[in-house]
Amino acid sequence: MKEFSVSNEDRAQVLIQALPYIQKFMGKTIVVKYGGNAMINEDLKSAVIQDVVLMACVGIRTVLVHGGGPEIEYMLRKIGKESRFVNGLRYTDEETMEIVQMVLAGKVNKDIVSLIQQAGGQALGLCGLDGGLLQARRLVSFEGDLGLVGDISTVKTAVLEDVLERGYIPVISTVAQGIDDAAGHALNINADTAAARIAADLGAEKLILMTDVRGILKDVKDPDSLLQEIQRSELDSLIKEGIVSKGMIPKVDCCRLALDAGVRKAHIIDGRIPHALLLELFTDEGIGTQVVNEGGTSHE
Amino acid sequence: MKEFSVSNEDRAQVLIQALPYIQKFMGKTIVVKYGGNAMINEDLKSAVIQDVVLMACVGIRTVLVHGGGPEIEYMLRKIGKESRFVNGLRYTDEETMEIVQMVLAGKVNKDIVSLIQQAGGQALGLCGLDGGLLQARRLVSFEGDLGLVGDISTVKTAVLEDVLERGYIPVISTVAQGIDDAAGHALNINADTAAARIAADLGAEKLILMTDVRGILKDVKDPDSLLQEIQRSELDSLIKEGIVSKGMIPKVDCCRLALDAGVRKAHIIDGRIPHALLLELFTDEGIGTQVVNEGGTSHE
Amino acid sequence: MKEFSVSNEDRAQVLIQALPYIQKFMGKTIVVKYGGNAMINEDLKSAVIQDVVLMACVGIRTVLVHGGGPEIEYMLRKIGKESRFVNGLRYTDEETMEIVQMVLAGKVNKDIVSLIQQAGGQALGLCGLDGGLLQARRLVSFEGDLGLVGDISTVKTAVLEDVLERGYIPVISTVAQGIDDAAGHALNINADTAAARIAADLGAEKLILMTDVRGILKDVKDPDSLLQEIQRSELDSLIKEGIVSKGMIPKVDCCRLALDAGVRKAHIIDGRIPHALLLELFTDEGIGTQVVNEGGTSHE
Amino acid sequence: MKEFSVSNEDRAQVLIQALPYIQKFMGKTIVVKYGGNAMINEDLKSAVIQDVVLMACVGIRTVLVHGGGPEIEYMLRKIGKESRFVNGLRYTDEETMEIVQMVLAGKVNKDIVSLIQQAGGQALGLCGLDGGLLQARRLVSFEGDLGLVGDISTVKTAVLEDVLERGYIPVISTVAQGIDDAAGHALNINADTAAARIAADLGAEKLILMTDVRGILKDVKDPDSLLQEIQRSELDSLIKEGIVSKGMIPKVDCCRLALDAGVRKAHIIDGRIPHALLLELFTDEGIGTQVVNEGGTSHE
Amino acid sequence: MKEFSVSNEDRAQVLIQALPYIQKFMGKTIVVKYGGNAMINEDLKSAVIQDVVLMACVGIRTVLVHGGGPEIEYMLRKIGKESRFVNGLRYTDEETMEIVQMVLAGKVNKDIVSLIQQAGGQALGLCGLDGGLLQARRLVSFEGDLGLVGDISTVKTAVLEDVLERGYIPVISTVAQGIDDAAGHALNINADTAAARIAADLGAEKLILMTDVRGILKDVKDPDSLLQEIQRSELDSLIKEGIVSKGMIPKVDCCRLALDAGVRKAHIIDGRIPHALLLELFTDEGIGTQVVNEGGTSHE
Amino acid sequence: MKEFSVSNEDRAQVLIQALPYIQKFMGKTIVVKYGGNAMINEDLKSAVIQDVVLMACVGIRTVLVHGGGPEIEYMLRKIGKESRFVNGLRYTDEETMEIVQMVLAGKVNKDIVSLIQQAGGQALGLCGLDGGLLQARRLVSFEGDLGLVGDISTVKTAVLEDVLERGYIPVISTVAQGIDDAAGHALNINADTAAARIAADLGAEKLILMTDVRGILKDVKDPDSLLQEIQRSELDSLIKEGIVSKGMIPKVDCCRLALDAGVRKAHIIDGRIPHALLLELFTDEGIGTQVVNEGGTSHE
Repeated sequence: MKEFSVSNEDRAQVLIQALPYIQKFMGKTIVVKYGGNAMINEDLKSAVIQDVVLMACVGIRTVLVHGGGPEIEYMLRKIGKESRFVNGLRYTDEETMEIVQMVLAGKVNKDIVSLIQQAGGQALGLCGLDGGLLQARRLVSFEGDLGLVGDISTVKTAVLEDVLERGYIPVISTVAQGIDDAAGHALNINADTAAARIAADLGAEKLILMTDVRGILKDVKDPDSLLQEIQRSELDSLIKEGIVSKGMIPKVDCCRLALDAGVRKAHIIDGRIPHALLLELFTDEGIGTQVVNEGGTSHE
Repeated sequence: MKEFSVSNEDRAQVLIQALPYIQKFMGKTIVVKYGGNAMINEDLKSAVIQDVVLMACVGIRTVLVHGGGPEIEYMLRKIGKESRFVNGLRYTDEETMEIVQMVLAGKVNKDIVSLIQQAGGQALGLCGLDGGLLQARRLVSFEGDLGLVGDISTVKTAVLEDVLERGYIPVISTVAQGIDDAAGHALNINADTAAARIAADLGAEKLILMTDVRGILKDVKDPDSLLQEIQRSELDSLIKEGIVSKGMIPKVDCCRLALDAGVRKAHIIDGRIPHALLLELFTDEGIGTQVVNEGGTSHE
Repeated sequence: MKEFSVSNEDRAQVLIQALPYIQKFMGKTIVVKYGGNAMINEDLKSAVIQDVVLMACVGIRTVLVHGGGPEIEYMLRKIGKESRFVNGLRYTDEETMEIVQMVLAGKVNKDIVSLIQQAGGQALGLCGLDGGLLQARRLVSFEGDLGLVGDISTVKTAVLEDVLERGYIPVISTVAQGIDDAAGHALNINADTAAARIAADLGAEKLILMTDVRGILKDVKDPDSLLQEIQRSELDSLIKEGIVSKGMIPKVDCCRLALDAGVRKAHIIDGRIPHALLLELFTDEGIGTQVVNEGGTSHE
Repeated sequence: MKEFSVSNEDRAQVLIQALPYIQKFMGKTIVVKYGGNAMINEDLKSAVIQDVVLMACVGIRTVLVHGGGPEIEYMLRKIGKESRFVNGLRYTDEETMEIVQMVLAGKVNKDIVSLIQQAGGQALGLCGLDGGLLQARRLVSFEGDLGLVGDISTVKTAVLEDVLERGYIPVISTVAQGIDDAAGHALNINADTAAARIAADLGAEKLILMTDVRGILKDVKDPDSLLQEIQRSELDSLIKEGIVSKGMIPKVDCCRLALDAGVRKAHIIDGRIPHALLLELFTDEGIGTQVVNEGGTSHE
Repeated sequence: MKEFSVSNEDRAQVLIQALPYIQKFMGKTIVVKYGGNAMINEDLKSAVIQDVVLMACVGIRTVLVHGGGPEIEYMLRKIGKESRFVNGLRYTDEETMEIVQMVLAGKVNKDIVSLIQQAGGQALGLCGLDGGLLQARRLVSFEGDLGLVGDISTVKTAVLEDVLERGYIPVISTVAQGIDDAAGHALNINADTAAARIAADLGAEKLILMTDVRGILKDVKDPDSLLQEIQRSELDSLIKEGIVSKGMIPKVDCCRLALDAGVRKAHIIDGRIPHALLLELFTDEGIGTQVVNEGGTSHE
Repeated sequence: MKEFSVSNEDRAQVLIQALPYIQKFMGKTIVVKYGGNAMINEDLKSAVIQDVVLMACVGIRTVLVHGGGPEIEYMLRKIGKESRFVNGLRYTDEETMEIVQMVLAGKVNKDIVSLIQQAGGQALGLCGLDGGLLQARRLVSFEGDLGLVGDISTVKTAVLEDVLERGYIPVISTVAQGIDDAAGHALNINADTAAARIAADLGAEKLILMTDVRGILKDVKDPDSLLQEIQRSELDSLIKEGIVSKGMIPKVDCCRLALDAGVRKAHIIDGRIPHALLLELFTDEGIGTQVVNEGGTSHE
């Protein structure tokens, strides 16, 4: 770890400046989609875990929804699984789904739980099958049948309330219970969307999406052109103007979904910055882009 | 399903005869080690799930601890993993442990949870990492270093109480948090022993081990020689006389461990009999062998 | 008791088949009017008590409202009481009312309570005077003044909630507190009507009336012509057609009263069949007639 | 009611003087044996009911145990029952026991409950059968077999706690569940003894026995010779000296039973004095005799 | 204390006559403005304290709001403070406000608390600064700037609920937190108005203003012309007719404020009568004037 | 405020480094004696308030006991009070005591409460009279009668528990209820001793005394000779050696009193350092001297 010297005086000052944020978020629910580089790089991962434990510790009801693409890739390669593609999208057959469930719910999820516990937090690792948390139907896509991929129809928030009330951080793999037929196949769910739906149904204060970009940039080539705050109503024109494009569009759709359900703010932050969560929550200027409902005020 | 005709009169009689057992076990904790054929055969599996849901439904605090040897084997083969053996016992290296965790906590565990949910029950799938439930040290064995295999040092029963009090059936994979070193490797735990330790630390009423044999047989070749009830104090001489031998010895050791910690009865039952759990719990004669502490009375 | 041989396999099957009914009724309130032969014949009585204890045991909030005509008759004869009749109906004078209260609240009620306790249940014996449970005005009848006979004006359901929440089965004698004048004479209440009013005011799931007939028969002379399910809206035409007639009319009126207040189903069952309660509740086909509100579905 | 003129000033003074007593007894349990003239005379009865309602109202956990000899006599005569005597004591055969239960639990008990309700209190009328409150064995007496007369073996105080915690005054008929044989005959219990046992097992603050005498008199012919306070240790010599004699002996035995179990004071008061309960509890001098454990202090 | 002889019989009668009032007010909130002679004369003060302790003791949620004009005067004189007047009203400068706060919250308040504690009650002494109980803005007056005098904008009733639920009598000094500017000067609040606002916001049953007059007199010179009960709607005409005039007008305004917010009755009583509170609450005729909302009934 | 520039990275680091301290103290009770320069200098005062609010905010049950010597001096001078001295110690006569109570409980206490509220905390201002919190006897001193000065005999911790459980910071003036005589004069209590007694009786984790010195210095003239940690057993020899002397002796006695009652650590810190509380609690090295019981470990 790099050298670190902050005087006692400054140290106290930092803590005191965190106070209004702690007071503001105490008892509120914040749903974090955890993914990207912040899940791969060991230092970043360790910083995220610390942030999450600190958040829970000062009374924020923290819900962690994680992805796990690279780990799934790795395992599929390991068993020599050839992927079939439908219009460029991978088709999730039964064997693939089995690996997805194993890797997400058995490996990635429990490893995160273990790290939280070792950092002094309390976590329970759940997937959408536990307590019937996530129920989904097969996704109907314009691109054709994608196999065992689902679209959430119900979030049983009572399961999360049970876990949060007992003081645990729920860590969630986005494998859902399929309800299309009696067989009840598990379905794979996009983690960003799942996080947004969970935030929406929990009536969360915030949805925070960790990405591998700075946020929404006015000029995608200029990292200094970050838009720190956007109104919900501006999203359409930002897409039309091409400022929001490609991979950012589904992220922005998730923000919209959450905001329209009453979540107060949605944040797109850069997981490559160490302690991005803390900095977004506990400083005036934040580090990413926040999307607010009209009537919402300046950066928190 | 085979033909089934019970008159209404008999049907009522069966229910009424279950009443004293329901009254007896209501609010009590029963820990079930689920494994063997009952986990492989689909009909047996479905019957076990129904039994467990019924148990929870009539107020029994039911804890399900599962194994998963065959599924682990299958996956290891799939990735072409060559096993190394130490005096005939498999050595659990890091790669193997990763598979063990994935298969148990991600596949077997969540599939059981899903079946319970679909049968109308409420379950949460945990492993020993969740909430720090199982903490273990590396097992020191006479046979030599077995790798990432552990011996439970602590069961954080508060985690199970939280889950049981909220009305869920905890389904437990026996992967534990290693506490030997800072790295905190997950460790593989024998499921029978884990079930016994959990029953002991929860102060359970019963420990039930599902096996692939009838129970303890006086003459191992004569299935009609089942010993229905054994006193705790008889176990030593049964081993000395060779009536308890081979694979039955560790099972009996688990029973002893639980009884010595105050569990009232330990049962070894035959998971190949459909609804073995219900029949053991809800009939006078039972179907397996029960080991009781002195002072304990006739078959429940 | 007649010979009884059900194989273990069938036994388990019966229990498992009861599971969906247990899940369905858990936590719901069911009000049973207990009377007729099922209260006189010792075997039937014992079966009813077992049914009620089982119902409570699997989490049904069970309320038992009882009659006691024959016992009252017996006691009136014993004290040599000559009855006065008004247009064929017995006039309830003060001396008679005193006997009614003594026999119902002191003898019949407490004997039922004692049987429930001996069967392992928990019961409290109440009459309408306890906690002011039933308040009534003198019944104004076309047939003339019937004396101390009442019509319920208020059910203080809080008393029943207190008793149910503490885990007791309330057993209720239908003697009410008169509120016409300061003297506050106790009044005699028809038990069927009282059960219907209690079910209505408790927002019960079901009202079950135990009678001495099969249910509503299409042809009163043909016991095989049982109507298993009737819509609330069909009742008027059934009366007009004479299918519902005589003593069945007030029973049907009670069903109507309960259904109109939101009770989901009202059942008229044959108390002469042993375990009629269990069979009606825990089998698909039931054994009597159920009256359902439109929108209600097939037999429970 | 006789003329009554107390100035407002005096009125306030009386209330204020009651304050320390209210503070002292708030939240404490007081068991009152109600019987004798105070149960027959209408004015006295009304005063007792008012006292009991006031006691409950200022936070005293009040338990009322009643007798009912005269009402039983009256009913036995009414059915022309000839009593059989054993050494001068009435033999309780089955028919008599049936009348005892009916009269006590159905008439006397529910009438008291009704009066309390009409005076603005909340009461539930129980007998020893309710919730298994009183369990008894056949009394073995030197005088010979007295029939269905019992000696309490267990008081299930949880039933009373349930009722008291919900804010009701339990009114108790002393009919107990016989546990000698499977038949489980109800047994008749002496009400004074029952009150003492209930006070003992509830850990009551006080046992108050309402009688038809002033209390314990030094000279039985001189009503002014009332002993206001007696030490527990003086009882033996008072009996030896003949100051306590005849009917007073069993009363004193009840006091002793209660005190030895930890009840702080036992009071023998004169139920013929209107509001005897209030005056004993809420004045310095009291109106009867109190028996205190050594270490107990001056009259409360 | 003057001689006092009430017979035991009358004593019991007085207590019993208090019963319906106790039943009526149990669990209700009554806000008392305590001031005037009743705060100066030692005997009156002692009687008020006893009344308040008794009220709390029988389950009335009692809130005591006090003034303290004379004590403030005394202290101002002691420090030789010259008062400045604005149109005849004292101007509250910073130094005066400091004395007001010290005297009210430090002396008068804590002395009352101490007396309640010594009389066996439980009290906490609060001012408007505690828990942010009273928040106020600078009063804008026709008479000109009066300095640090405030008008309540918010009563944080949660603070009072916390204190009442834990069983304490809140004793309140009417010093409020100023919210006009960041400096947050404490502001002086009129105690009558504060009591009315507190009663209004707590949804109290009653507001009782203790004054130094009999109540509202039809003829201000004739003390026998007391108006015992006035309708809310009559107040305007009473003022117009001059029956309510001068110092009584603000008192009546307080009553109106409380009644309009849903308080059921407002009482103006004569604090010079010993135990005025008890007599107003616990006698049929009361001793002062009560103002009721239309639909309200005869004197309580 | 001086310039302040901490990079975001360092800022996050500081927060994360606070985490183990937050986890360690969450739910623990810490009693702070607040006094000296930290109560006079506005910047220091503001920093203390922030520290206290932050402590409460992260779940520390914080109790603030304050002094107020200078404010009392100021007020005594203002009323021209001549002090009488007994062997050099001020004699507290009734008039002085009245000023002490007014200034402490009415001015200093409520001003602190107001500051905490304005900083976003929740506080209630109590003195020893509230709820009977502090009960004391007249201090018997070798120096002669000191007047209305007391020695705590009882701390009614239930009052503090009530306040803490409801989420308030109790702010305590050390004026106690005298229990020597019926008059019940309030008594003045030394604030350090009061804080120690309160910490002792609450079973606090820590007692922190804010002083105007660095802590215990090995060489009183060398501020760099601070003893960071002392064992309880070393105190005697430190006094004997003269290292602890003069004004430090009573401070050390308070530490001893607390430690002997089970408080884990007692801290003497320098209130002249801004945010001394935070720095002592939330850094490894601390800033003052801590006294630990044997078995206690390195600086927290």
